[in-house]
Amino acid sequence: MKDQLRQDIYNHAKNWILEAGKHLRDVIDEPLYIDTKSNPNDLVTQMDRETEQFFTKHIKETYPDHRILSEEGFGDDVTSLEGFVWIIDPIDGTMNFVHQKKHFAISIGIYHEGIGQIGLIYNVMEDILYSSIKGQGAYKNNKRLPKLDTNLTLEESILVLNSFWACENSRINETKIQQLIKKVRGTRSYGSAALEFAYVAEGIADGYLSMQLAPWDYAAGVLIMDEVGGITTKADGAPIDILHDSTIFSCNRELHDEITVNYVELKQ
Amino acid sequence: MKDQLRQDIYNHAKNWILEAGKHLRDVIDEPLYIDTKSNPNDLVTQMDRETEQFFTKHIKETYPDHRILSEEGFGDDVTSLEGFVWIIDPIDGTMNFVHQKKHFAISIGIYHEGIGQIGLIYNVMEDILYSSIKGQGAYKNNKRLPKLDTNLTLEESILVLNSFWACENSRINETKIQQLIKKVRGTRSYGSAALEFAYVAEGIADGYLSMQLAPWDYAAGVLIMDEVGGITTKADGAPIDILHDSTIFSCNRELHDEITVNYVELKQ
Repeated sequence: MKDQLRQDIYNHAKNWILEAGKHLRDVIDEPLYIDTKSNPNDLVTQMDRETEQFFTKHIKETYPDHRILSEEGFGDDVTSLEGFVWIIDPIDGTMNFVHQKKHFAISIGIYHEGIGQIGLIYNVMEDILYSSIKGQGAYKNNKRLPKLDTNLTLEESILVLNSFWACENSRINETKIQQLIKKVRGTRSYGSAALEFAYVAEGIADGYLSMQLAPWDYAAGVLIMDEVGGITTKADGAPIDILHDSTIFSCNRELHDEITVNYVELKQ
Repeated sequence: MKDQLRQDIYNHAKNWILEAGKHLRDVIDEPLYIDTKSNPNDLVTQMDRETEQFFTKHIKETYPDHRILSEEGFGDDVTSLEGFVWIIDPIDGTMNFVHQKKHFAISIGIYHEGIGQIGLIYNVMEDILYSSIKGQGAYKNNKRLPKLDTNLTLEESILVLNSFWACENSRINETKIQQLIKKVRGTRSYGSAALEFAYVAEGIADGYLSMQLAPWDYAAGVLIMDEVGGITTKADGAPIDILHDSTIFSCNRELHDEITVNYVELKQ
């Protein structure tokens, strides 16, 4: 694709994400109408829906041939990665949005013919935009992020993971995860997959493991991590399929191999 | 003690904590000299030491009869709670300070004849001061914090705990902690005990459980939680002894009973 087209799409996406974020900040103290989806902890509010509709409206008006894969279902029924596909989470970390009124993000990954082109993760309440254009590096607002530190040992690393995966579960051998938790310097859990990707990209933490993410949770994070020299795979190191729910492990390349080989044993 | 004296001490402590925090922000990008203490993950830097010395110097000059119990050892050998005791952590969350350059706090709890009088927790990089004076409520900067929501069910609650306590360990029955993790809406871990107390006090999360805290980690948090109607005990519900290392559980009163009775089983 042509650089100018990619830059135009980036400019539009950036403007829209900043505008949507400003609106969320403006209404953050207004009453929320909270529903649940797949389970009682899978929350959705009218603000998730309205924010998604804001994006779908603008994208369809400006780029009528682009398709949209999005969390709340106002996009398209996307089953292939042909052409342009926008993968959108209007509010990533809805539980934080509801309970904390911060620590949530808008996440947008834009793919062309299956190749990731643009990643945007907007920490709304802190007004921090993480962004990347393929081959041009990743940025935190206007500051370019350095490449990941590859000299860290596992013992010096901080991992982001939810304590749930140290408990008996159907997806991963929890005993090995417990060994991993004891091996690293520390673990953190912030409750927004998109922000957790961004934190690893900027070196706040050194790796992010999750056993259950949807495309809109990771589509942007993968691209931003690519641009700082990171690698993102399924938890066991297998390639991800951007159209489907997935386990995810995102990290620098050295720690990635050590952890996937020694500490990840999937149950299915 | 007289209100005016308490207010004077509060004013001094607040001015010193803001000044120390501003200095930390000013030098945040300068090189750190990192040592380890009790174990390779127990970090200390010259900034922990210098910040503590800043406080001990000012306190000793202004209140020569007050005693200081502090993390880096520049205070006094405090074995009783007679008179005034300042309990200070110059940088709570040193791992975050080193790795993230944010998400750390200065924590000061001031006790008189064993009674907590003043609590201060300063989120340095976000310039947010949580504070309390006994009987006068708790504040986030200049905004009074409301009382804790006591209508939450366990299933709707977010708990702050480190994933380490879901792993096999010598202190607490990890199987019951795993049941607790699966029962609640979600868990978070931020890496600074003082901030984790503050987050519960302001409703960012609904309870905080730790199996290993020193007095300087919790001395201020306990007082701020008191002022929003919370309760802090050892993990099993027993009273804390502010001069000693302790397990800690801080929460609203309703959830506190449910969790300590059903999910906490200490091994020692």
